[in-house]
Amino acid sequence: MEIAIMLYDGITSLDAIGPYEVFAATQKCKVKFVAKKKGLIKLDSKMGCLHADYSFSEVTSADILVVPGCSPPNYKNPMNDEETLNWIRQIHETTKWTTSVCTGSLILSAAGLLNGAPATSHWGSFDLLQSLGAIPTDERVVRHGKIVTAAGVSSGIDMALQLVAWELGEDMGKGVQLILEYDPQPPFDTGSTKKAPASLVEPIRGMLQEFSKREPNI
Amino acid sequence: MEIAIMLYDGITSLDAIGPYEVFAATQKCKVKFVAKKKGLIKLDSKMGCLHADYSFSEVTSADILVVPGCSPPNYKNPMNDEETLNWIRQIHETTKWTTSVCTGSLILSAAGLLNGAPATSHWGSFDLLQSLGAIPTDERVVRHGKIVTAAGVSSGIDMALQLVAWELGEDMGKGVQLILEYDPQPPFDTGSTKKAPASLVEPIRGMLQEFSKREPNI
Repeated sequence: MEIAIMLYDGITSLDAIGPYEVFAATQKCKVKFVAKKKGLIKLDSKMGCLHADYSFSEVTSADILVVPGCSPPNYKNPMNDEETLNWIRQIHETTKWTTSVCTGSLILSAAGLLNGAPATSHWGSFDLLQSLGAIPTDERVVRHGKIVTAAGVSSGIDMALQLVAWELGEDMGKGVQLILEYDPQPPFDTGSTKKAPASLVEPIRGMLQEFSKREPNI
Repeated sequence: MEIAIMLYDGITSLDAIGPYEVFAATQKCKVKFVAKKKGLIKLDSKMGCLHADYSFSEVTSADILVVPGCSPPNYKNPMNDEETLNWIRQIHETTKWTTSVCTGSLILSAAGLLNGAPATSHWGSFDLLQSLGAIPTDERVVRHGKIVTAAGVSSGIDMALQLVAWELGEDMGKGVQLILEYDPQPPFDTGSTKKAPASLVEPIRGMLQEFSKREPNI
């Protein structure tokens, strides 16, 4: 099974590496990190890099496409880049599954793939997702036909396990979960806006909205 | 707060990127990816790279040291490399917390930091951990003085959230969990050997033990 994970400057590393690790652990997937130009890719934190081993021109199809997200406002660059959007549309024509993690769904929206479709994103980007024509849906993994969107950052792990189970069988999904020892024990219960108190949610929402008005800084 | 994440060829990407993403989200940490030589670092899957922005000689102290793990048998190279072990010992002298994810604890053991200490690792490496002098402890995050070891691969996220809460306060820990939308919903309940059936655990244990007898292949 061929997996293309799209990279771009300003990306959130875990959005890409969570799914990568799940697919890699199957030992049945060829995972390709793909970007407009191959080479180093700057992270949104400005504290490190990922690496694209393939350029868009070298990857013309995939069984699964993963479009990771980033902190606001770095999604604006890929959302406004026709070469990137055209590559996504081209790969989407060939996929069994076209997927996103976090604000990657904004980029899928910009490519025209989520018009009128239920989809999720980082919880702080639901207004923007709606303004782009999707129907924001507050679930961790949302499937609409062959498009699967995942919520913020860490949710790509859950999404990829589900995709592995759908494509390679439940036993493989269960085995990968054991290999990655994915038995989460977060120290708090504040991982979603339904569970965290408003006093925690609202300042972070405000900060993210403020950031989203800016120009990309990477 | 300065965080040094040690990289080496053959590493498991999520072991490093899980903690990185947690520390980065605080916006209060300077995270440095450090290796013997800076540049591209090959992943254990042979399907991608991370990137070391710093060499050992450029990083002589850290508040938190993170030693990620890898699939067997790739830990053998760092475990047998005196320059790597000496760097770990040197940084450990300066840290508030010296930590590992997954089989990274084997490398800490090889550096002599876990003699007689309770510690964890990937569940498939408990025998090896014990043979190196540590006391294998089947918990997701094990603290012994200033040394904190985490279980397999994905557990580095839980460990880093705990470290953030200890160092920067519970509110910061809770906020980071919300920013990363870490509200895990794995599709199965097979993430640990306590939960997965023996019919799933034993073949994977056998495979990992077989791999561990080989020579590093990266």
